[in-house]
Amino acid sequence: MAASAAERGSKAWSDIAQKNAVAGFVDTLLRGTGQVMFQNNPLTGLLFLIGIFYNSRLLGVAALIGLVSSTATAMILRVDQLLIRAGLFGFNGILVGIGLAFFLEFAPYLIVYMVVGAAVSTVVMAALANLLGPWDMPALTAPFVLTTWILLFALYQLEVIRPTELIAPAIPDPAAQIQTLLRPLPEGTAGGGLSVVNLAHAFFRGIGEVMFEDNLVTGLIFLVAILINSRIAAAMAAMGSAVGAVVALLLGADGSFTYHGLYGFNPVLCAIAICGTFFVATWKSALYALLAVATGTVAFASISVLLAPIGMPALTAPFVLVTWLFLLPKAAFAVLRPVALADVTSPENIRKRFLGARSERPQSA
Amino acid sequence: MAASAAERGSKAWSDIAQKNAVAGFVDTLLRGTGQVMFQNNPLTGLLFLIGIFYNSRLLGVAALIGLVSSTATAMILRVDQLLIRAGLFGFNGILVGIGLAFFLEFAPYLIVYMVVGAAVSTVVMAALANLLGPWDMPALTAPFVLTTWILLFALYQLEVIRPTELIAPAIPDPAAQIQTLLRPLPEGTAGGGLSVVNLAHAFFRGIGEVMFEDNLVTGLIFLVAILINSRIAAAMAAMGSAVGAVVALLLGADGSFTYHGLYGFNPVLCAIAICGTFFVATWKSALYALLAVATGTVAFASISVLLAPIGMPALTAPFVLVTWLFLLPKAAFAVLRPVALADVTSPENIRKRFLGARSERPQSA
Amino acid sequence: MAASAAERGSKAWSDIAQKNAVAGFVDTLLRGTGQVMFQNNPLTGLLFLIGIFYNSRLLGVAALIGLVSSTATAMILRVDQLLIRAGLFGFNGILVGIGLAFFLEFAPYLIVYMVVGAAVSTVVMAALANLLGPWDMPALTAPFVLTTWILLFALYQLEVIRPTELIAPAIPDPAAQIQTLLRPLPEGTAGGGLSVVNLAHAFFRGIGEVMFEDNLVTGLIFLVAILINSRIAAAMAAMGSAVGAVVALLLGADGSFTYHGLYGFNPVLCAIAICGTFFVATWKSALYALLAVATGTVAFASISVLLAPIGMPALTAPFVLVTWLFLLPKAAFAVLRPVALADVTSPENIRKRFLGARSERPQSA
Repeated sequence: MAASAAERGSKAWSDIAQKNAVAGFVDTLLRGTGQVMFQNNPLTGLLFLIGIFYNSRLLGVAALIGLVSSTATAMILRVDQLLIRAGLFGFNGILVGIGLAFFLEFAPYLIVYMVVGAAVSTVVMAALANLLGPWDMPALTAPFVLTTWILLFALYQLEVIRPTELIAPAIPDPAAQIQTLLRPLPEGTAGGGLSVVNLAHAFFRGIGEVMFEDNLVTGLIFLVAILINSRIAAAMAAMGSAVGAVVALLLGADGSFTYHGLYGFNPVLCAIAICGTFFVATWKSALYALLAVATGTVAFASISVLLAPIGMPALTAPFVLVTWLFLLPKAAFAVLRPVALADVTSPENIRKRFLGARSERPQSA
Repeated sequence: MAASAAERGSKAWSDIAQKNAVAGFVDTLLRGTGQVMFQNNPLTGLLFLIGIFYNSRLLGVAALIGLVSSTATAMILRVDQLLIRAGLFGFNGILVGIGLAFFLEFAPYLIVYMVVGAAVSTVVMAALANLLGPWDMPALTAPFVLTTWILLFALYQLEVIRPTELIAPAIPDPAAQIQTLLRPLPEGTAGGGLSVVNLAHAFFRGIGEVMFEDNLVTGLIFLVAILINSRIAAAMAAMGSAVGAVVALLLGADGSFTYHGLYGFNPVLCAIAICGTFFVATWKSALYALLAVATGTVAFASISVLLAPIGMPALTAPFVLVTWLFLLPKAAFAVLRPVALADVTSPENIRKRFLGARSERPQSA
Repeated sequence: MAASAAERGSKAWSDIAQKNAVAGFVDTLLRGTGQVMFQNNPLTGLLFLIGIFYNSRLLGVAALIGLVSSTATAMILRVDQLLIRAGLFGFNGILVGIGLAFFLEFAPYLIVYMVVGAAVSTVVMAALANLLGPWDMPALTAPFVLTTWILLFALYQLEVIRPTELIAPAIPDPAAQIQTLLRPLPEGTAGGGLSVVNLAHAFFRGIGEVMFEDNLVTGLIFLVAILINSRIAAAMAAMGSAVGAVVALLLGADGSFTYHGLYGFNPVLCAIAICGTFFVATWKSALYALLAVATGTVAFASISVLLAPIGMPALTAPFVLVTWLFLLPKAAFAVLRPVALADVTSPENIRKRFLGARSERPQSA
């Protein structure tokens, strides 16, 4: 019944968004927010925003600045209206906004940096869409990663862009001891170990960190937001965060990093993308996503190491790299069923369409 | 009248170059030089060479070695004659020659390194031309960047290749103070500040540095050389250097770097490429080029930081990266009009052809 | 006569491999081993394995683990049977296995890391095959390089993955003296200099190091293994290792590195790929391969420097980069004759087919 009420509400909102220009713009922004995790659903996007503001008003405002700037830039440059309305020019901008607010000291001129940066992410999105066209491959969050890297790396050369203490360049040390105890803070003495509470933090923060939200409750809100749109996507998000944390613990990754969800957010995105969105959700694609999740967990460590000498964050580059590698084989793996970009809807609809069509013929009833 | 005399002279030279093989080869070399800034014009190329020799005979000789080697290699490998004649296998070679002479201690065997390096740049040019073919995208100076990086990075492992003191590897320091005062030398006490003289240095050296010429007069000669072929390209070169310097000053970049034009040369190339050469010159593409110029300025800082741990120069990689990203959207931005590679001539001719054709139909007569 | 006996043996084995599933799987594994150096020949593969085991049982077992895992993964994912049978899903897996055993301290769980890593290399192989499809370009050992880099870089962040002392991160020093004397050990006092023995070590180890085998006899076995399948490929392997060592000595590379074949293994692969496999073997393509070999030698130094701050090995990335750049021009160089991927067999067969067909027409007996 609740679902049915939600559906009616969703239908009513769609009608309003169709007719009213302001509502249409708000709808575009909300879908852009939902698209960060492949959910083309304004209610999911709204809950994402609520989750961000619950954790930090600063990050919430930064998110809105980036979201509006990248979307407005796409309108000014007159991109295909349908693509804009699906939120495809919002999800990179929102991440640029939050990412800059997360890694840089706040200052009023940072707003200008965010606005311009999010605008550039729209150019990069259109560039990558064209570049990947021949393979019918999605740009994922590569525009966010590329744009934010350009904007962040520069800070050592620019006096007015000041980093937070999260930026700490260093040559890696092969003999360094890694603190593998799962716990809140590297130097903290209390609360260590594999407790249920600590594991819950790792799990939910892993989902929250997709948008830089290091907060258990925000992670929970994000998971509910995905669930509203797709049970399969929510299950995959949960699998990604859980398996990412387990793989990190098994390989002896830093316990504090795992606690704060840093080994979770890339796997979350890998799992949603691979099982359900760009391959039809089946048990086989779920196992394939599991392999991608394990690879994405290791790739987070790798890309972090690669950027360590300049002290820069991996962002969602591990997700982009691993998901591209796992999607590119397409039809070469006969056990998997790739979905054309034009056919991407919710995992449930995709499943119905592909597997329904397949089962109709042999079983025909 | 002067222009008309120049046109007649240009016509006479073309006739000679068509008939005489030696003159044809010289014409090819001069066009190759002009192509460094997208000017397929032998007189522009000649003035570029004069500008280089005005600043440094060593760099001038290195330029000629690289230019002849890459062009001759294209002939030996029997590349399409029309492409060679347009200078497309000269502009990367000339930059390889100057780049190696600029960053490496001179020694006789360096000539062999230059000759072979410039020859390799011709292979890389043909490789990238084929790679970018499906998108009808230009290789820009990527062959120069890639080849020179391979040749320079290696120096730490090769005893006979010795760097100048410009190569200084270091881990970046987030807390480092940046000297933002616009002035000639980092340690100099006199001549600092935002004086007209210092700004003129930043502006003209920014154009000169496209070919590693840290010299106000050479920058002026380069600008005149471009102007001879295209007023739009010259205006864009000027805009690129000026805006690059202003953005660098606003963001608090190192004042000495800005003074020496290091924040100018990538934006210069971005601006010429985007407004007039690969998009039809309009007010909209000029504004779009402005965004690219700002991005290219920040990207120079970024790529410099990325290479800081090995102490290597960004070269024109910021230009290549940003221009590729800004050109790739092509027709996805309805406010811009992309130019097919086969249709690239001077910005004025492109404008006439595209906008003339467009206005003929609706307005007719 | 010996050759004829070998041919009859080869025919008999093919028949068995066709009919018997186990023999077919063994044949696939052996061809996968041979494909590391482009030799689709089970006997060559067998000799490669013997060479590896001769040098190190540990590396031999690691090779088999990687080989079986990547091949089995391709079968499980149901890749086109013909591609699997040609060994195309074995050569990256075997290298992942040996590479991990070479750079990481042995521990039982490392076997899991190898198995999963080799499985991922199969995904990356299918991804790159699709990515490179539009240019009809081979993936080469890029799947091995990419997968192994991801798995190795991560070690600084993962307590259970421990490096050997070969992993030593450092900021490069432009003023560092390079020990250019050709000799076994950096600190050794005896055996230095350009002796025939030392040069023989450099030459044969250069071939052995293609599979991380730092052993003169193994290099000799590898060369014989190639010779069994193709005289042209063996000649090119010899040319690559010899020229790589000579270029390294001329440029003043570290003598110990050269002695151990580190400047040889990338050139070996460049030479086999370019002259005979992907371009028809002629004197012109041999000279072209020579230029590629020189470039690949320098590129090994370059990529090693680029990865020095994180202390990571270049693996066969120099070969992949340089060979891609030298193959991509394809038909743009009229002096060379590119071979379509579908037409790749042994260099001798390719030569017969292309040059035979060409000479038939004009000369017609």
